[in-house]
Amino acid sequence: MQKITPQEQDFATWYTDVIEAAQMADYSPVRGCMVIRPYGYSIWENIQKILDEKIKETGHENAYFPLLIPKSFLSREAAHVEGFAKECAVVTHSRLKAVQKDGKSEVVVDPESKLEEELVIRPTSETIMHTMFAKWIQSWRDLPLLINQWANIVRWEMRTRLFLRTAEFLWQEGHTAHATQEEAQEETIKMLGVYSEFMENYLALPVVPGAKSTTERFAGAAETYAVEALMRDGKALQAGTSHNLGQNFAKAFNIQFQDKNGQLAHVWQTSWGVSTRLIGAIILAHGDNQGLILPPRVAPVQIVIVPIYKKEEERTEICKAAHALKAKLSGFKVKVDDRDQMKPGAKFFEWEKRGVPLRVELGPRDVAENKVVVADRLSGKKTSMPIAEFLQNAQKLLDQFQQNLLERAREFRRQHTFHLDSYEEFKQKIEGGGFFALHWCGSATCEEKIKEETKATIRCMPLDAKEEKGKCIYCQAPSNKRVIIARAY
Amino acid sequence: MQKITPQEQDFATWYTDVIEAAQMADYSPVRGCMVIRPYGYSIWENIQKILDEKIKETGHENAYFPLLIPKSFLSREAAHVEGFAKECAVVTHSRLKAVQKDGKSEVVVDPESKLEEELVIRPTSETIMHTMFAKWIQSWRDLPLLINQWANIVRWEMRTRLFLRTAEFLWQEGHTAHATQEEAQEETIKMLGVYSEFMENYLALPVVPGAKSTTERFAGAAETYAVEALMRDGKALQAGTSHNLGQNFAKAFNIQFQDKNGQLAHVWQTSWGVSTRLIGAIILAHGDNQGLILPPRVAPVQIVIVPIYKKEEERTEICKAAHALKAKLSGFKVKVDDRDQMKPGAKFFEWEKRGVPLRVELGPRDVAENKVVVADRLSGKKTSMPIAEFLQNAQKLLDQFQQNLLERAREFRRQHTFHLDSYEEFKQKIEGGGFFALHWCGSATCEEKIKEETKATIRCMPLDAKEEKGKCIYCQAPSNKRVIIARAY
Repeated sequence: MQKITPQEQDFATWYTDVIEAAQMADYSPVRGCMVIRPYGYSIWENIQKILDEKIKETGHENAYFPLLIPKSFLSREAAHVEGFAKECAVVTHSRLKAVQKDGKSEVVVDPESKLEEELVIRPTSETIMHTMFAKWIQSWRDLPLLINQWANIVRWEMRTRLFLRTAEFLWQEGHTAHATQEEAQEETIKMLGVYSEFMENYLALPVVPGAKSTTERFAGAAETYAVEALMRDGKALQAGTSHNLGQNFAKAFNIQFQDKNGQLAHVWQTSWGVSTRLIGAIILAHGDNQGLILPPRVAPVQIVIVPIYKKEEERTEICKAAHALKAKLSGFKVKVDDRDQMKPGAKFFEWEKRGVPLRVELGPRDVAENKVVVADRLSGKKTSMPIAEFLQNAQKLLDQFQQNLLERAREFRRQHTFHLDSYEEFKQKIEGGGFFALHWCGSATCEEKIKEETKATIRCMPLDAKEEKGKCIYCQAPSNKRVIIARAY
Repeated sequence: MQKITPQEQDFATWYTDVIEAAQMADYSPVRGCMVIRPYGYSIWENIQKILDEKIKETGHENAYFPLLIPKSFLSREAAHVEGFAKECAVVTHSRLKAVQKDGKSEVVVDPESKLEEELVIRPTSETIMHTMFAKWIQSWRDLPLLINQWANIVRWEMRTRLFLRTAEFLWQEGHTAHATQEEAQEETIKMLGVYSEFMENYLALPVVPGAKSTTERFAGAAETYAVEALMRDGKALQAGTSHNLGQNFAKAFNIQFQDKNGQLAHVWQTSWGVSTRLIGAIILAHGDNQGLILPPRVAPVQIVIVPIYKKEEERTEICKAAHALKAKLSGFKVKVDDRDQMKPGAKFFEWEKRGVPLRVELGPRDVAENKVVVADRLSGKKTSMPIAEFLQNAQKLLDQFQQNLLERAREFRRQHTFHLDSYEEFKQKIEGGGFFALHWCGSATCEEKIKEETKATIRCMPLDAKEEKGKCIYCQAPSNKRVIIARAY
């Protein structure tokens, strides 16, 4: 049985151990690419289902654009191509062929199939979408254009890590076009809000929404916003981004519309996305030394029922009772673990690793007394209660679990958020991790120096930061708001 | 306003006209790749939702495997690579870089980023999945392994056609491994049945399930089955396939398990898939000269409500009544078309093109009398009825529409299915299209000759074909069952 390295011993190994033990994902033989196994993929499906609804409720429609982007399209917006050039999977040929080599048949790329223009696998879809937007948008009546896409993306990352940074990942990418700058900014902030709310309410992940510094902006954006979360090793994780693209792409792709006065004008645009990285965030924000702890609202299994019997003749009856209980829990994601030849203890251990919120134990005595024992993955507490009571309270127990998980994450963040005014103190304390609310003058020089000296970066300038007179933690120049600085994934 | 070419004038142009008029898809600037627009994508989402449920009900789990496959993996199964080599998008480099050329900056592929081994964008995922299966499967306890994936696929097709044949398309691909040959065969046929039932019940598309001839087998399969549908121009369309892979891949990828007796054995496998091609099938099987006709169970909009008013002062009241009606139709996909400055007639025309099953017209007199006029896209009939009656019968009307559409397609197929025994008669009649139930001796030579002389292919050997003594339509050798022959997409 797979052992999980304790967090305090080696957090990075703990992370990969948990993913393997819970069968969430696997490294594939393709460099930097992962296989998302059913248990991990099911979390992604739950995320998709909820978030897709919220994206549609806010007026967006799903569509699908090509995977392959002509190199020349990517180059059209200068900052954009610069940002992505170093990590592009490039398609150059369209055929393989068999050749004879040393008497053996070998398959090689057919040189005669070289493409006229190379194609890049989308690292993001601004350029291909905007090419179509230019065709579809004619008048103010066509605006706003609110499109979302669920897709796979390839960025040739050199250092990869399951879910957090992989050469290929899954995401949703919203792309919109508006008549005015104000509308684009409103959309950018609205979608950041949709993300924050989704992460807090469904992933039990408290996040800080804020603006990125100029240095950390998305390649081609006028302004980038992000939601930042704190992981249990004290590192920050950027959980989602929302970009105000200004008219940068509109000008590069000539997306113009006739306004109400008959004047031609360029549209104002946004893009925003979250990815399978969120699964990494769930693991890192909630997991413990026993394994995963999953928020009930996205857990593949919310309640696992383990029948407990010693004698073979008890088996049938207990399993029947377990399935009968499951049948009464319609609307919940329930699994009966009736595997034979496996002891209850081993099953408990396995479902703990997999982070199932509630475990229900059902033995001969429980069945006789119409009771169940309910074990809570978060508190570890076991409670015996009448079946009727459990059935009546199952939703409440799961909601409470969800709330407790969020509260625990919030409490952890409170305890690991530090308001400091001394650079020396910051340099010492950063070793222990956490969010640091510090004054910063806004200069890229100080930002760079801080990064060099502490490996910490400006995570964001929180939207709700209070006005407060202070001095830049690095250069002492005046500042009127604190920013969040942390080491990050 | 976009005009639709009549079917009888030019069926192929009618098809692309309908897609454009209904805003379902668009050619992209990337060779052979399409953009699926929201109206088309929404049909795909509806297909996904229903089919995904059926795939899960039959015990399969979703997962996600890498887009990129090392060239050597693809080559491992000889027939497989031969089948796909000619249409592979090959990734050879991982970076772009800017260079100066004639005083201008240009972006080129960085030759230093050449990959050690080329990667192929998946044309199907047997090889990458089976690599992982070999790792996951150890014992008979790990079987059956039942995996499904929703993904994008690239096949470098030379002649492309929106939805029917595009370089990139979306699909689901099931991949399974079993302990015995019998189980694999059972799975192959079971999933073919899931497809048939889904297509008949949800897409109103009657299909013939049957086995493919050896020539038409999937590259690497032991046996290929397909469901074949008849389009309104008399051509057949392969709407889905299910393959019994035997042990071909298990041997190539060394997927072995320890059976109950402790013996090592290779697994038996299947794969099966349907794609965005189904959207093409819906258009081609049901559409008419006014445009699309959509089966209610997958239509993005089932009921469109068009407020009718002449005087501006009526507008508010009628629109209010339209939205009130929509509110009462919860559970249905309803759209109120309250666009101003567009005449009702133009709206009718547009929603007819888009194939919405029921149109509800609501004018001042209707509102005064608590009535609506309901127009049926299939029959073209308009009926006035009390609102209460419409609300009570909406589900029944849509079910009836779905049934009528299926019946119409069945009737069309009945009228265009010909049991012939004379090759001369067949050669004449094939010009008019249809399914031809003919005797065939089973030889590839006759199959090839028939194809050469008539452009028709053996679509399938129907599973339910009756035993019947006959002679091969081509060579007169004995045959005991009729096969379906047709010209096909």
